[in-house]
Amino acid sequence: MTKTKVAIVGASGYSGEELVRLLLQHPHAELSAVTSRQYAGQTLAQIFPKFSVYSRSKALRFSEPKSELIAKEAQIVFLALPHGVAAEYARPLLELGCQVIDLSADFRLKSADIYKDFYAHDHPAPELLAKSVYGLPEAHRAEIKNATLIASPGCYPTSILLPLIPLLKSKLIKSSGIIADSMSGVSGAGRKLEVDYLFAECNESVRPYGVPKHRHVSEIEEQLSGAAGEKVVIQFTPHLIPVNRGILSTLYLSPEKHFTNAAEMASLGEQISKCYQAAYGNEPFIRLLEGKALPDTKNVVGTNVIEIAWRLDPRTGRLIVMSAIDNVTKGASGQAIQSMNIICGYPETAGLL
Amino acid sequence: MTKTKVAIVGASGYSGEELVRLLLQHPHAELSAVTSRQYAGQTLAQIFPKFSVYSRSKALRFSEPKSELIAKEAQIVFLALPHGVAAEYARPLLELGCQVIDLSADFRLKSADIYKDFYAHDHPAPELLAKSVYGLPEAHRAEIKNATLIASPGCYPTSILLPLIPLLKSKLIKSSGIIADSMSGVSGAGRKLEVDYLFAECNESVRPYGVPKHRHVSEIEEQLSGAAGEKVVIQFTPHLIPVNRGILSTLYLSPEKHFTNAAEMASLGEQISKCYQAAYGNEPFIRLLEGKALPDTKNVVGTNVIEIAWRLDPRTGRLIVMSAIDNVTKGASGQAIQSMNIICGYPETAGLL
Amino acid sequence: MTKTKVAIVGASGYSGEELVRLLLQHPHAELSAVTSRQYAGQTLAQIFPKFSVYSRSKALRFSEPKSELIAKEAQIVFLALPHGVAAEYARPLLELGCQVIDLSADFRLKSADIYKDFYAHDHPAPELLAKSVYGLPEAHRAEIKNATLIASPGCYPTSILLPLIPLLKSKLIKSSGIIADSMSGVSGAGRKLEVDYLFAECNESVRPYGVPKHRHVSEIEEQLSGAAGEKVVIQFTPHLIPVNRGILSTLYLSPEKHFTNAAEMASLGEQISKCYQAAYGNEPFIRLLEGKALPDTKNVVGTNVIEIAWRLDPRTGRLIVMSAIDNVTKGASGQAIQSMNIICGYPETAGLL
Amino acid sequence: MTKTKVAIVGASGYSGEELVRLLLQHPHAELSAVTSRQYAGQTLAQIFPKFSVYSRSKALRFSEPKSELIAKEAQIVFLALPHGVAAEYARPLLELGCQVIDLSADFRLKSADIYKDFYAHDHPAPELLAKSVYGLPEAHRAEIKNATLIASPGCYPTSILLPLIPLLKSKLIKSSGIIADSMSGVSGAGRKLEVDYLFAECNESVRPYGVPKHRHVSEIEEQLSGAAGEKVVIQFTPHLIPVNRGILSTLYLSPEKHFTNAAEMASLGEQISKCYQAAYGNEPFIRLLEGKALPDTKNVVGTNVIEIAWRLDPRTGRLIVMSAIDNVTKGASGQAIQSMNIICGYPETAGLL
Repeated sequence: MTKTKVAIVGASGYSGEELVRLLLQHPHAELSAVTSRQYAGQTLAQIFPKFSVYSRSKALRFSEPKSELIAKEAQIVFLALPHGVAAEYARPLLELGCQVIDLSADFRLKSADIYKDFYAHDHPAPELLAKSVYGLPEAHRAEIKNATLIASPGCYPTSILLPLIPLLKSKLIKSSGIIADSMSGVSGAGRKLEVDYLFAECNESVRPYGVPKHRHVSEIEEQLSGAAGEKVVIQFTPHLIPVNRGILSTLYLSPEKHFTNAAEMASLGEQISKCYQAAYGNEPFIRLLEGKALPDTKNVVGTNVIEIAWRLDPRTGRLIVMSAIDNVTKGASGQAIQSMNIICGYPETAGLL
Repeated sequence: MTKTKVAIVGASGYSGEELVRLLLQHPHAELSAVTSRQYAGQTLAQIFPKFSVYSRSKALRFSEPKSELIAKEAQIVFLALPHGVAAEYARPLLELGCQVIDLSADFRLKSADIYKDFYAHDHPAPELLAKSVYGLPEAHRAEIKNATLIASPGCYPTSILLPLIPLLKSKLIKSSGIIADSMSGVSGAGRKLEVDYLFAECNESVRPYGVPKHRHVSEIEEQLSGAAGEKVVIQFTPHLIPVNRGILSTLYLSPEKHFTNAAEMASLGEQISKCYQAAYGNEPFIRLLEGKALPDTKNVVGTNVIEIAWRLDPRTGRLIVMSAIDNVTKGASGQAIQSMNIICGYPETAGLL
Repeated sequence: MTKTKVAIVGASGYSGEELVRLLLQHPHAELSAVTSRQYAGQTLAQIFPKFSVYSRSKALRFSEPKSELIAKEAQIVFLALPHGVAAEYARPLLELGCQVIDLSADFRLKSADIYKDFYAHDHPAPELLAKSVYGLPEAHRAEIKNATLIASPGCYPTSILLPLIPLLKSKLIKSSGIIADSMSGVSGAGRKLEVDYLFAECNESVRPYGVPKHRHVSEIEEQLSGAAGEKVVIQFTPHLIPVNRGILSTLYLSPEKHFTNAAEMASLGEQISKCYQAAYGNEPFIRLLEGKALPDTKNVVGTNVIEIAWRLDPRTGRLIVMSAIDNVTKGASGQAIQSMNIICGYPETAGLL
Repeated sequence: MTKTKVAIVGASGYSGEELVRLLLQHPHAELSAVTSRQYAGQTLAQIFPKFSVYSRSKALRFSEPKSELIAKEAQIVFLALPHGVAAEYARPLLELGCQVIDLSADFRLKSADIYKDFYAHDHPAPELLAKSVYGLPEAHRAEIKNATLIASPGCYPTSILLPLIPLLKSKLIKSSGIIADSMSGVSGAGRKLEVDYLFAECNESVRPYGVPKHRHVSEIEEQLSGAAGEKVVIQFTPHLIPVNRGILSTLYLSPEKHFTNAAEMASLGEQISKCYQAAYGNEPFIRLLEGKALPDTKNVVGTNVIEIAWRLDPRTGRLIVMSAIDNVTKGASGQAIQSMNIICGYPETAGLL
């Protein structure tokens, strides 16, 4: 089978580097171009010695990010760029016939107005919003299959949407009053030079940030509204914790049905269990925890897996759902490759197990 | 001024060790006895070399925990023992005329039934429950002053109660629907030999535990009910994060008053600000953050301070309050010494700044 | 191609778990038995949920470690057991016709006397010492090929031997006066319940231990003596640092040839460079760093690679060599599988890239 | 007693911040000026909320670093500036009659030539080198007493010099062939914005750097040469490890006297023990470890203490000495205040216990 030629624009950040790692090992993809202004002219192996076990890393050199050249080299192009910048590349690459998988926030929202509300500037390519597909395979597999522009989800949204969508679709929980409390490792901030992300500022530190209107709220709400069939507004609080990778989200939910005794609770529990089994029982990257197990980021780091567990609380009547992902893999680059696999008709797990 | 003689029963765990650290430096206390079955006969300096800069550590030897001997040596006795065990020492020590400051959960609840519900065994000394005072100085200063048995609060409860009590007392928030999401450093588990707390199991890991009915819920609810004047039931989720010390709690609250525009939000914000200023403006250990600042455990570790910040969310109508403490200091040993200072009539900050 | 059936005795520790991880993904091996007294009867997926993405993990159950049963299930048996215990299994398994790859220290030394000197008890199976091959593929590939009993090297030894052997063989350095200063992550201590390895004791801590006669000195010296053709005695100091995985070793060496000016230094440098290129230029798991690069454990963690760099110091006349490995992979389980690949005639990198 | 007025020039880095912490609590010092271009006009409490428990922090505002103004406010001025910059302030401040305690490398060497060799530029104020005193109190207490310009030692040098000086002075070890292998926490790099010091680059990483000619070698050698009475050249390798604070140094030394049996080793051991006792038995900040204890950074972090332990190795004939300090306290700011205490005639431990 001929391999699909793929390129990465912006391959020097954390999600770019993770794309490189996964694509160098991918059985059906050939990494044909990587761009980086900073590293142009140097080989992958020179910049990331750890990839030098793959011979391709010694041959492939970073190039300047020029759309025409990239389009000659690759059919599928991953954009691992800051938001706002990604759109500048998406437009010409699409016109040149590439399929684009964008890891930034640029095409995740359908509404340019909501984009402006959350990102504080006009959308750079509003005409493309209708075209883009939100690349959460477990929710939008069919649309992804035929998409030319994939907006790969944010890390927090992935950890929050996957547990919530089946519950909302099946009307097991109320769409109002949802609270998502999340903790993320520091790679989530990217390879950004700010004092806040220095080792000695993060180590032995835990802190909330972006309270109460983090940008990721916008895409979470748009996706949840789609699942619920009505407008959903959520409460979301991210926290920074001293790990390299991993997001843990704890979700506080109100079941539609009150349970006032053990039998009702058991019955509701069974419905929730069935709901998740029906939605995700065959998903290769979703691990529904059983028994006493609760999610732990260390069990998903480096993988494309999300762990999900839930508990009903008879004292408060609430449903607590907890999830864990690797923010750089399932929360970014792994998921983007999962979308690529769908587009190309490869097994969805190709290169991801 | 003569120093007060104090003893620590169970001085080899993390909170015992922190008591030793603080009391060796206390200007008005003399550490006259420390007990530890394991280390009996050895000096403090031998077991904890870092304390050897204090000459007292070279003279004072660990002894077996015998109430009669302790009572001869000390007027105030700190119990840093597992729950269930503390009560066995509290009774004889009180009878022998000591004042007891217990850091365990044994005397924090007024109700032996609730104790049994949460701790799964009968209360070992129910007759003492009426006598004990919950040692949260900012809430119970007057009762502490005259107490002979102090139940020093748990670490999670401290981080949750201090931000909530003024809001409930002033009826600014509803007493129902309160959610507390907390993250704790690993010292919170004590010097306990379990695989879960090994370095390689905690590092690069984040995980919830004790969902949905952690034992600390009982004392949180009892105290909140007291403040609200009605029964309060809360949702509480603790998480373990890879730091040595520190608790960060994020609280999701519903204001009594709806705010539907900017003016109403500003007005409510002013009320909240005044409420906290009135309650805590002069408290030496409460830092009400201003402007854009949010709590960060690294700013309180090693101190007896709690940091508190809050935000109103116009999108959801909620009030988010965040707090940070050192679980071993304000969450345990520092707070216990703060109670001692009150009992003895010392400046409340003595030995704690 | 039929897969080779392999078993792991003692699959619940860190190196056992890493064997499981690597063997579940190995293209030519079928994991047919895993033993653990503690977990007997449970599936791999139940104990290590993270492996549940591999269907084999749901079918394979831990069994009691009985040699006869293991020998029926597997041709190659990995022993991931404490030293002293491994020998008890090696003997019957060999008699039953298995090939044994032992990750403990039991068969690494040729001399039962030296074993007793360093391990403080009689060797449990001295008759097998002559039979065993030290499983450092880059040094003993040919012997490994035909071995039935492989003694897979220790983690510290791997990080020290690989950089030193070519230099000693080519007489570029003196065999006397060698100093090895190493730092290891905490997984090196195993899943052992000791206070010293609790998170709050290791985090924010660095400490030497086992000074000056750590057990690994014995196998390092025996192997170096073999390479040098004369008895080698080394100085070795291990340190514990707060990372999960990784060993960094810094080696202080005296070149045979003095260099007293820049030209002599350049000439010696060229010899060293050629020596390493000749020895390791084609080794898939040895990364000889160039230019300004120095080893960093984060570039090898999770891989079977060792990074090596060196510097000549014109001020002291010394050669400094530095190396980095993952103690659990190249330092234990990855290297053991590398030996298995050699024994079975598979590509040496099978399942390890 | 009137307090001494002190100023800190460059109070926003890690050692500046630590000076603030210690001076706010100092019984005999009044912090009368702190400078920072970045924070000029803001109070200490605004920039470092954690200091707001000290009322002085709410009154004192950062100012621009102008020598004339500083000299009006303070008798003793601490310079916590990058090397090269410190000298620019030292000269005018000395002329204006201040006593200057410089934490940079600018005045640590007596030779401007060696400075140029290691720092790659001409010394900015060579005429002051003769005047300055190397502020290692345990070695130069008498000179410090009367100094007007103190060059406070570097962090690595402190950890290496204190263990070595008594051994060299008493001729117990050879002055040649000394090797110092050190590990430092990331705060040692300062609050510097470089990718290398981001959390996700340091966490789960260990790496050597500055091999083989780190700048600190120059002051170490100059001080050791002074102690030995002959020129000393050392081998020094620093490593970066993922802790906030702490340096662990392991020193490889050759005793002058060979020991070839247990009796000779015991005799030499006794001499070493006496040497250290004579030199440091009464030093308040030097902890000579006994028995099986080895240094651990966690026992000194936050303190001005150095831990020292040593072992003779009968197999190699070497003496291994290990030390641990907090790089920001004993390695920088605490030690600088120790010098201030000496200059002012205060108890040397004032504000440091």
